[in-house]
Amino acid sequence: MIKEECGVFGIYDFDGGDVASTIYYGLLALQHRGQESCGIAVSDTSGPKGKVLSSKDMGLVNEAFTTEILKKLKGDIGVGHVRYSTAGSSTRENAQPLVLNYVKGTLALAHNGNLINAPELRKELEYTGAIFQTTIDSEVIAYFIARERLNSKTVEEAVGRAMKKIKGAYSLIIMSPRKLIGARDPFGFRPLCIGKRDNSYVLASETCALDTIGATFVRDVEPGEIVTISPEKGIESDKSMCIPKEQHARCVFEYIYFARPDSFVDGMSVYNSRILAGRYLAIDSPVDADLVVGVPESGNCAALGYAMESGIPYGQAFVKNSYVGRTFIKPGQKNRESSVQVKLNALRDAVEGRRVIMIDDSIVRGTTSDRIVRMLREAGAKEVHMRVSSPPFLWPCYFGTDIPARDQLIAYNRSVDEICKIIGADSLGYLKEERLSQIVEGREICSGCFTGKYPLDPPEDDIRGEFDH
Amino acid sequence: MIKEECGVFGIYDFDGGDVASTIYYGLLALQHRGQESCGIAVSDTSGPKGKVLSSKDMGLVNEAFTTEILKKLKGDIGVGHVRYSTAGSSTRENAQPLVLNYVKGTLALAHNGNLINAPELRKELEYTGAIFQTTIDSEVIAYFIARERLNSKTVEEAVGRAMKKIKGAYSLIIMSPRKLIGARDPFGFRPLCIGKRDNSYVLASETCALDTIGATFVRDVEPGEIVTISPEKGIESDKSMCIPKEQHARCVFEYIYFARPDSFVDGMSVYNSRILAGRYLAIDSPVDADLVVGVPESGNCAALGYAMESGIPYGQAFVKNSYVGRTFIKPGQKNRESSVQVKLNALRDAVEGRRVIMIDDSIVRGTTSDRIVRMLREAGAKEVHMRVSSPPFLWPCYFGTDIPARDQLIAYNRSVDEICKIIGADSLGYLKEERLSQIVEGREICSGCFTGKYPLDPPEDDIRGEFDH
Amino acid sequence: MIKEECGVFGIYDFDGGDVASTIYYGLLALQHRGQESCGIAVSDTSGPKGKVLSSKDMGLVNEAFTTEILKKLKGDIGVGHVRYSTAGSSTRENAQPLVLNYVKGTLALAHNGNLINAPELRKELEYTGAIFQTTIDSEVIAYFIARERLNSKTVEEAVGRAMKKIKGAYSLIIMSPRKLIGARDPFGFRPLCIGKRDNSYVLASETCALDTIGATFVRDVEPGEIVTISPEKGIESDKSMCIPKEQHARCVFEYIYFARPDSFVDGMSVYNSRILAGRYLAIDSPVDADLVVGVPESGNCAALGYAMESGIPYGQAFVKNSYVGRTFIKPGQKNRESSVQVKLNALRDAVEGRRVIMIDDSIVRGTTSDRIVRMLREAGAKEVHMRVSSPPFLWPCYFGTDIPARDQLIAYNRSVDEICKIIGADSLGYLKEERLSQIVEGREICSGCFTGKYPLDPPEDDIRGEFDH
Amino acid sequence: MIKEECGVFGIYDFDGGDVASTIYYGLLALQHRGQESCGIAVSDTSGPKGKVLSSKDMGLVNEAFTTEILKKLKGDIGVGHVRYSTAGSSTRENAQPLVLNYVKGTLALAHNGNLINAPELRKELEYTGAIFQTTIDSEVIAYFIARERLNSKTVEEAVGRAMKKIKGAYSLIIMSPRKLIGARDPFGFRPLCIGKRDNSYVLASETCALDTIGATFVRDVEPGEIVTISPEKGIESDKSMCIPKEQHARCVFEYIYFARPDSFVDGMSVYNSRILAGRYLAIDSPVDADLVVGVPESGNCAALGYAMESGIPYGQAFVKNSYVGRTFIKPGQKNRESSVQVKLNALRDAVEGRRVIMIDDSIVRGTTSDRIVRMLREAGAKEVHMRVSSPPFLWPCYFGTDIPARDQLIAYNRSVDEICKIIGADSLGYLKEERLSQIVEGREICSGCFTGKYPLDPPEDDIRGEFDH
Repeated sequence: MIKEECGVFGIYDFDGGDVASTIYYGLLALQHRGQESCGIAVSDTSGPKGKVLSSKDMGLVNEAFTTEILKKLKGDIGVGHVRYSTAGSSTRENAQPLVLNYVKGTLALAHNGNLINAPELRKELEYTGAIFQTTIDSEVIAYFIARERLNSKTVEEAVGRAMKKIKGAYSLIIMSPRKLIGARDPFGFRPLCIGKRDNSYVLASETCALDTIGATFVRDVEPGEIVTISPEKGIESDKSMCIPKEQHARCVFEYIYFARPDSFVDGMSVYNSRILAGRYLAIDSPVDADLVVGVPESGNCAALGYAMESGIPYGQAFVKNSYVGRTFIKPGQKNRESSVQVKLNALRDAVEGRRVIMIDDSIVRGTTSDRIVRMLREAGAKEVHMRVSSPPFLWPCYFGTDIPARDQLIAYNRSVDEICKIIGADSLGYLKEERLSQIVEGREICSGCFTGKYPLDPPEDDIRGEFDH
Repeated sequence: MIKEECGVFGIYDFDGGDVASTIYYGLLALQHRGQESCGIAVSDTSGPKGKVLSSKDMGLVNEAFTTEILKKLKGDIGVGHVRYSTAGSSTRENAQPLVLNYVKGTLALAHNGNLINAPELRKELEYTGAIFQTTIDSEVIAYFIARERLNSKTVEEAVGRAMKKIKGAYSLIIMSPRKLIGARDPFGFRPLCIGKRDNSYVLASETCALDTIGATFVRDVEPGEIVTISPEKGIESDKSMCIPKEQHARCVFEYIYFARPDSFVDGMSVYNSRILAGRYLAIDSPVDADLVVGVPESGNCAALGYAMESGIPYGQAFVKNSYVGRTFIKPGQKNRESSVQVKLNALRDAVEGRRVIMIDDSIVRGTTSDRIVRMLREAGAKEVHMRVSSPPFLWPCYFGTDIPARDQLIAYNRSVDEICKIIGADSLGYLKEERLSQIVEGREICSGCFTGKYPLDPPEDDIRGEFDH
Repeated sequence: MIKEECGVFGIYDFDGGDVASTIYYGLLALQHRGQESCGIAVSDTSGPKGKVLSSKDMGLVNEAFTTEILKKLKGDIGVGHVRYSTAGSSTRENAQPLVLNYVKGTLALAHNGNLINAPELRKELEYTGAIFQTTIDSEVIAYFIARERLNSKTVEEAVGRAMKKIKGAYSLIIMSPRKLIGARDPFGFRPLCIGKRDNSYVLASETCALDTIGATFVRDVEPGEIVTISPEKGIESDKSMCIPKEQHARCVFEYIYFARPDSFVDGMSVYNSRILAGRYLAIDSPVDADLVVGVPESGNCAALGYAMESGIPYGQAFVKNSYVGRTFIKPGQKNRESSVQVKLNALRDAVEGRRVIMIDDSIVRGTTSDRIVRMLREAGAKEVHMRVSSPPFLWPCYFGTDIPARDQLIAYNRSVDEICKIIGADSLGYLKEERLSQIVEGREICSGCFTGKYPLDPPEDDIRGEFDH
Repeated sequence: MIKEECGVFGIYDFDGGDVASTIYYGLLALQHRGQESCGIAVSDTSGPKGKVLSSKDMGLVNEAFTTEILKKLKGDIGVGHVRYSTAGSSTRENAQPLVLNYVKGTLALAHNGNLINAPELRKELEYTGAIFQTTIDSEVIAYFIARERLNSKTVEEAVGRAMKKIKGAYSLIIMSPRKLIGARDPFGFRPLCIGKRDNSYVLASETCALDTIGATFVRDVEPGEIVTISPEKGIESDKSMCIPKEQHARCVFEYIYFARPDSFVDGMSVYNSRILAGRYLAIDSPVDADLVVGVPESGNCAALGYAMESGIPYGQAFVKNSYVGRTFIKPGQKNRESSVQVKLNALRDAVEGRRVIMIDDSIVRGTTSDRIVRMLREAGAKEVHMRVSSPPFLWPCYFGTDIPARDQLIAYNRSVDEICKIIGADSLGYLKEERLSQIVEGREICSGCFTGKYPLDPPEDDIRGEFDH
């Protein structure tokens, strides 16, 4: 069971144009959802049924794909994926989309989310003769689709039947030879939306990918909905798996951190959601200060909201080195340099002699916050007040967010005052739990990582990594 | 159905030493059997059951593996593979060994050969819910092992049951968490032998790999035999799938071309087999000449045999550029250079004014022979007599040898005289069909590509490539 | 004559510690000054005199250097370089530092700037038997140092003599076997500063590199000054080449765009300089609006200044894709996507229905501004007022800034109103020329690219690229 | 002073066709002369004078060049180089051809050989203001050409004047904007020949490169000759630097080992020279045996000669792994495998029970010979008699052959009997010194590495590596 936050993108050009380069730009826009590996699979609907061309590799989208590779990926229907995962299973085998032959030809499958019953399902499948070549949940889903396909009239029917078996978080895009299918788990943990550009339909994790390729937003795929896109019937919808709206459980962390601020998730602007978080922080945790700043980039929107609400001027206190990504050589123990210092530097002239409110989206272990607070002080800040635009992390996530073990969480078994002391701030304030619903304007959410209350019973034993090879 | 000639290597060190680097040297020795992709999978038998580490890549063994990669492949049991295949399916996904999780844990599987009923078996499996992620036969075999495992006490029993389903040519090495298993199809198309070094047992396609790693030859795996290697029981043998010796059908082309001359295949020295082929050519197609030469490297042994038998001096007529491998830029139509010229050059002083007998292992399309004959003439050879150490290629191979379509074979619908004229030689002689048995000293062989007579009925329609993605 | 903006970094650890990894972090901090190629050269002062180890490559610092490479670069004195240049000459040969043997051993030389008399000097050198292997000015400088060394007691004396010959912009770091030398042209076009960490002295283009490695700022190298750093004498200063302060001519574009806002250039905070530019824009080009936003990243500081001065709230209107750097595949003509769209997206909720003041650091050709203005309108902005934190580009730069030919500059031969119409804004305002001096608080500057008035006569014919190979 | 054996190739197509791909094939044919780095520089004679495009890289020709790179190298005149060198200086900087700008434009220079007065010349040049960026002799030569050019009417005149300064072994190809120039040192240490193909002239280290590209041999460049190739005058010859034929000193090791057997060096077939060496060995060191074999590949020709002379049958005793080149992972101390075993294997059936005469081209340290002799014994050889087709290595070479220090040479201070015992052979015979002249049919040779007698006084102190960076 591997925790992953990923991005998916699919497109079907009814006019028969090549889609690989559009998928490329779509994935670039979703890169923040996964930087470990990526892949594109396409098919030519006018060619031999089931002929799928694919390319997958480790690394960023612009590292994995060249003009030459994109040119070879000829096809008018396709699906792409960007993947994040914990280190252990970051193998090329686990890159998506998964391309497979089954009784009815070929499927390509891209998946964002995490099944909580994957281990049981794997066992069940193995006891009926299945073999597994990866450790990703997509392979489990693919098996159920393949098996249910034997008793189904259409592939989308098989997807629906498979959804009865799988439990947890999933937003799926499936490419069959002549159909593009999108599906979202009944709780709606992960986002999925529909767009249109000319005579092409698009499925994507976030609306920012629609903007990037110049498509217009059509609507979100609803929690539990299966949409089937084909030239014959346009968008067909199957809502038989939908559950009452009250049971929906969108991951609230999509709004707080995962999604790009220019995206809309289920009709809610992510930007606005963060502005609201900042505003509520200002209301609930006010403090007298000269300047409100965000820890770049993820703290900036909430900082803006805090500034708006409090009337304290918004400012910039840090410069982020935009050339330092995942891959630079981390300083070792004996180096005088630190990773935080390499990535961030304080703006002395902005903070010197000032009382600074510093906003970040979350505190996990607390080590980075500690360094950043110190950085501000060394740059002359008179006071440093930290505000966090989410409640304290206290519980594991079983639905795709990679949260460390509880004993590594700074908030575990500690009061806010104790945490404040550890990170060295003058004051510390978290977003109140009850504000979570407000920052998404009443949408139903999962806030299990903050509250320990999950919409689905968590698995009894977390066997993460057992199948890891 | 993909035709492939490959090499397999497995080792189990009962003393618990790391085996990856030994597999690396073993694969280097088998590189002539496949240069497209390669892979190594290892497991630590003292570690968690089923934890397999693997690395696979396109290209040669010394390109695909670095010291760093080998160091990470910690384990005392392992299996390796080198792969050759036709261009269409030369994808990374198809590289071996295949590593899979199934009901009883993890297996790694390396396979040399070609199943003739793979398409039917795939269909059959798909109708019971299987999904396929590659186009290699190994995946079919793995499925049957996984399914039969449910009704078997041991993995080797499951291998035996799977062998009842699969038809065609295969030499298999299977690594289960605590056992190394070797199996050879009942006809013995492809070679497989057992070696020993200290307290390690080795399985390999050819004995030359044993020499390279300093192991001693124990014995060949018999056609139809399954050997199971474990510290508890050493080598166990299951011969229940064996068929009468008269029905064996070793690929004779292993002796003529595939295997390295320093290997022994089923007790027969490949070198000697080629010497014999040369001798019979001298007996059956004598000609008065000054010099016998081989087309390097594969024609050299037969040329030596011809020289021995005829008394005509052996010589060297060509220099082969040993730095030009698979990957140099082939001259295009408009270039003045030719690929043959880039690879070979004649030794003027060796051939000028002489009548030369030139021996090659085979003629396929005839284009290369034509160029080489001309090269000798331009270097001053007075006469060029070509002798071929195998009969004319006339039929397809269904068991793993990549022979072009019949209409591309120079010998198809042409007399020897006509071929001789096309390649521009003064005379041409092929090895007689009836000599094939003699050059392997009476061993039972398959010579289907020369005779059209196969030990197994060929598949009714050759659906090669259908599943290719 | 190649225009280049580059970054230089040097360090000498008097305690004999290895410096390569510190140079690596220093160059990471200077990466914004050049992304084309980079290099590090080090020497072990306790080893054989003149033994220099170096590594240079195309690409970013984190692409060009691996842990393995850094480990091999053993030495306690070293110099590094990041390079920007126009496409034509972006060859590996031109990467710096330049390492050379000359009469007194070995030198490594890193250079930021542009000589205006390089062509004449090359000619002069060639007429006395020089050969050139690169097209970088550093090679010219190296020759003069080498030749003047014959008549000088020390290498720093030779540097001083060489400075009498070379004209133009240069900040130099030179590593001789036992000395680290920094020099800055008499006009002070390009920055250079001195830092200290424990018993190490550092030279760097910008102070942000000092912060990153945890060094403290000592002072700037003065225009025309040569500093020589050695364990025996610490910092020695030679000011014989200095000219009256009134003639200094710092490149004002360093403050406006090149330098990182967290750097201090000649005592002036770059951040503050941009805040001031924004303030003056608000004073000189006021407009009634709801929101002030910057074009990320370079417009943000000035936008903040504008907001402070005008009282109009600062906001964020764009999301920048931080994974899209130099190297992504640019959309072609037939693509529906555009490079600007791939890089930037507007925040609908932030701008919809609002009157927006959008601040950028400069307008060159105008094509990007046009797209961004349209992007804001499409996101619902009611009005878009563009303000530019520098005057219009009208003249070439001969001192290292890569400005296109005049006829490609949107401001050439056009009024502000005409430009405003082209980019589609509701109003447009540039920073007034007379404000330039104020944003650097009276420091002497070169503003030739805006005014056509240069501190040095420009070369008569611009023979840029002639020597390009 | 770096010892190097290299290969050079130049071509000028008077019809204006692109030459880069022909240089590529020429270098492939010369790859045996250097596998460390390679390069190609071309110029378009119809384009701007002095515009040179070049590409150089570490590794083999087929690794360093892609179709894409070759396509970019547009030009009808060009020069290429393959380089061998000792490890220390195997840097990219030292790759050739050297491309340089000087007073008269641009030159590209490729050089094979070793100057013995390079250190003095470097000193001399440095004292007149030269700087050096590489450690290759080509840079010294280039300087003298550049300086002499100031007093010369033509570049070839400058080459002639430069040749008066440089001492040692050199075969040079120089490309000036409109001329291709070849020059050979007065002693003729290293080979250089002229070929023609249609309206193109070719210069190459060896004739095998002419064969590969389909050019015909015109003649050798004579020792001391400068040839200038231009469309106006075809081949012009300047023999003013030639010395009396009796003083010529061709490197005899070119015949024994360096050159490809299909080459002719100064009219002598290398193949024939090796046949002769084998014949003389048979005459001078006869022994009763069943089989003569060569250590592949370099011992094969001499083995053939020995067989011819002695009447003992020639055979093949070894299989060489043709996939194992420079770059495989060498077995470490703790490995059971050995490098020799990985590269070579004995043919049991060929040698078992036989008395074998084994011929190699030379013995350096003796470690390889020792292993090979043992390999034959383990394969069942009854007796192993080693014969070496050159005299014992006893002295350093100052002219480009990389011979280890004397104390590492097995023949240093040891009798033939002692050596025989060390390598474990039954008998050992070297080629007699007096035969050297005979195997090249009386041509004047340098055999300094065998005799210690050099045609030029060796340098007083060997400062190899001092300038190494």
